[in-house]
Amino acid sequence: MDTKKSILILTTGGTIASLSSSEGLAPGLNGSDLGGYLAGISENYLITIKDILNLDSSNIQPEEWMFIAKSIYDNHNSYDGIVVTHGTDTMAYTTSVLSFMLKNLPIPVVFTGSQLPLTHPLTDAIDNLRYALAMAATGIPGIYLAFHRKVILGCRAVKVRTTGFDAFESVNYPLVATIDANGLNINTNAIQPITGKVVYKENLCNDVFLIKLTPGLNPEIFDMLVEMNYKGIVIEAFGSGGLHFVNRNLMEKLKKLVDAGIPIVVSSQCLYERSDLSIYQAGQLALKQGVIPAYDMTTEAAVTKLIWALGQSNDEEEVRKMFQTNYAGEINLNKPAHA
Amino acid sequence: MDTKKSILILTTGGTIASLSSSEGLAPGLNGSDLGGYLAGISENYLITIKDILNLDSSNIQPEEWMFIAKSIYDNHNSYDGIVVTHGTDTMAYTTSVLSFMLKNLPIPVVFTGSQLPLTHPLTDAIDNLRYALAMAATGIPGIYLAFHRKVILGCRAVKVRTTGFDAFESVNYPLVATIDANGLNINTNAIQPITGKVVYKENLCNDVFLIKLTPGLNPEIFDMLVEMNYKGIVIEAFGSGGLHFVNRNLMEKLKKLVDAGIPIVVSSQCLYERSDLSIYQAGQLALKQGVIPAYDMTTEAAVTKLIWALGQSNDEEEVRKMFQTNYAGEINLNKPAHA
Repeated sequence: MDTKKSILILTTGGTIASLSSSEGLAPGLNGSDLGGYLAGISENYLITIKDILNLDSSNIQPEEWMFIAKSIYDNHNSYDGIVVTHGTDTMAYTTSVLSFMLKNLPIPVVFTGSQLPLTHPLTDAIDNLRYALAMAATGIPGIYLAFHRKVILGCRAVKVRTTGFDAFESVNYPLVATIDANGLNINTNAIQPITGKVVYKENLCNDVFLIKLTPGLNPEIFDMLVEMNYKGIVIEAFGSGGLHFVNRNLMEKLKKLVDAGIPIVVSSQCLYERSDLSIYQAGQLALKQGVIPAYDMTTEAAVTKLIWALGQSNDEEEVRKMFQTNYAGEINLNKPAHA
Repeated sequence: MDTKKSILILTTGGTIASLSSSEGLAPGLNGSDLGGYLAGISENYLITIKDILNLDSSNIQPEEWMFIAKSIYDNHNSYDGIVVTHGTDTMAYTTSVLSFMLKNLPIPVVFTGSQLPLTHPLTDAIDNLRYALAMAATGIPGIYLAFHRKVILGCRAVKVRTTGFDAFESVNYPLVATIDANGLNINTNAIQPITGKVVYKENLCNDVFLIKLTPGLNPEIFDMLVEMNYKGIVIEAFGSGGLHFVNRNLMEKLKKLVDAGIPIVVSSQCLYERSDLSIYQAGQLALKQGVIPAYDMTTEAAVTKLIWALGQSNDEEEVRKMFQTNYAGEINLNKPAHA
């Protein structure tokens, strides 16, 4: 009896598959090249490799998200687990949006990539593939990102380093697993429960704009975004969720947009910890205008959830309800108790 | 002979000066209230307190930066050091922009604030004031941010936590000082040299827009920003500086703007480590369009430097030169050597 797990590797390009070109590193390797580097690893699994894209992840956009989601959905019944190789630059956006598009997947889908190409003598690609394959073989359902001896819930990952091998952090959420001489140490408390059958909702609305607030931002930008037919806005506000209202009054613009049925999600530009609009006057005023608080969501999760939510409904109230629902571990709606 | 250092405290509002109101925390205390909390500290210095603003720092904008800069400039000959109390939310923007507006200040100017109000029984305000006053008394010239037992170069500070007392990090630059039982441990390598007389250049241009890139961003936003008369743009690109050019081509828009004389500065949305547009095809293409690389600058420094640079000159080449010059420790132009 063969107890090896069957793992599908979907390749999408990225640094891991890059080769030098006259214009700098660009995707060049394909899946069969990749297979040649897995000596000592591939023997442990029944590996199938399919090339589905060959893009620098800066070029992975909503159309590619839909294509990757479909590729996973179409294959999820045929394998014990799926590994997706992907550029690091937008990997956290992809793992976030897929967490909404593919709910209750019954198998692990583990994204990985590398900071140096597979062909570089110091590459981190082989080790990252080890971790991703091991996680994919656990059978633990969910969408994950495996990198540098850790496994992160897909909708909690953020790329925080441009070149360091420890490129990703799990933001406001515990690590799903770490890797050391004990093997893969799963933190069972970090696993999100399966709540039913797989739900595949692939529709997206790309008309979402992210504003990282800067001091003195001219409120007129909101009028322009409406004119450009944006359907939803995420604001990375200051600190716990502050927005200026003296001299340049963002509040009246927010109200105008919310009244026009455009959902406005407010998160924080601080990397860590939850935003809480209820603490300061500047946040309470924003709440009064009807903005939707992102609480402890990452920006990657807030933006992609809004892109996805507006793909499901263009009703502001429906979108608001979706943001008040935890789909994949992306949000903790319970305010921690304070003295 | 009195060897106590004379320190001016300028108050601007912020959490440190906040009181509960029916709308949430809002600035309420003034400087003489503050003085009442300095028992055991104030005896060590000759302290003068002046209230110059009383704002939540979400409402501190370029006009306030100019006012704070002027207050510091007007007083810098009369004190051994200056402490500025300021809300934490935009403090890193203020310390960054002042680093450009006030070059070669001969005394320390140390910003601080707190995560809990001065009146809260668990406040961090008193300790932060201790650190700021001690740094201000050293006589070491420069603009600094003192918080949670560390002193950060003003143009390298980023607020990374919404509520934790350890709210700020020094990004891509060593700490200027740490505080422990040895007292204030100055890292002399982190001190920027004085290169001449104080230079006070207060002009700012607020027509700068920050775009934090998201996958699939519609390039038309750049046309709209030109129509809105924005004079400069900072893009927080992906990873080392990636921007999409397949399907939606940001490159041709960048070229159009640069050709029209609008400087475009490209930084990274990764918090840590330097961006380097020369590594990947997606970055090299952007460089070819004439964008200005921000290298290892923080977003706070890149945005405020562009606001300041455009206040000095509206010539794209002049602005480019300013970004290729280190003014205050905000940029390391030397690419680290790699094998």
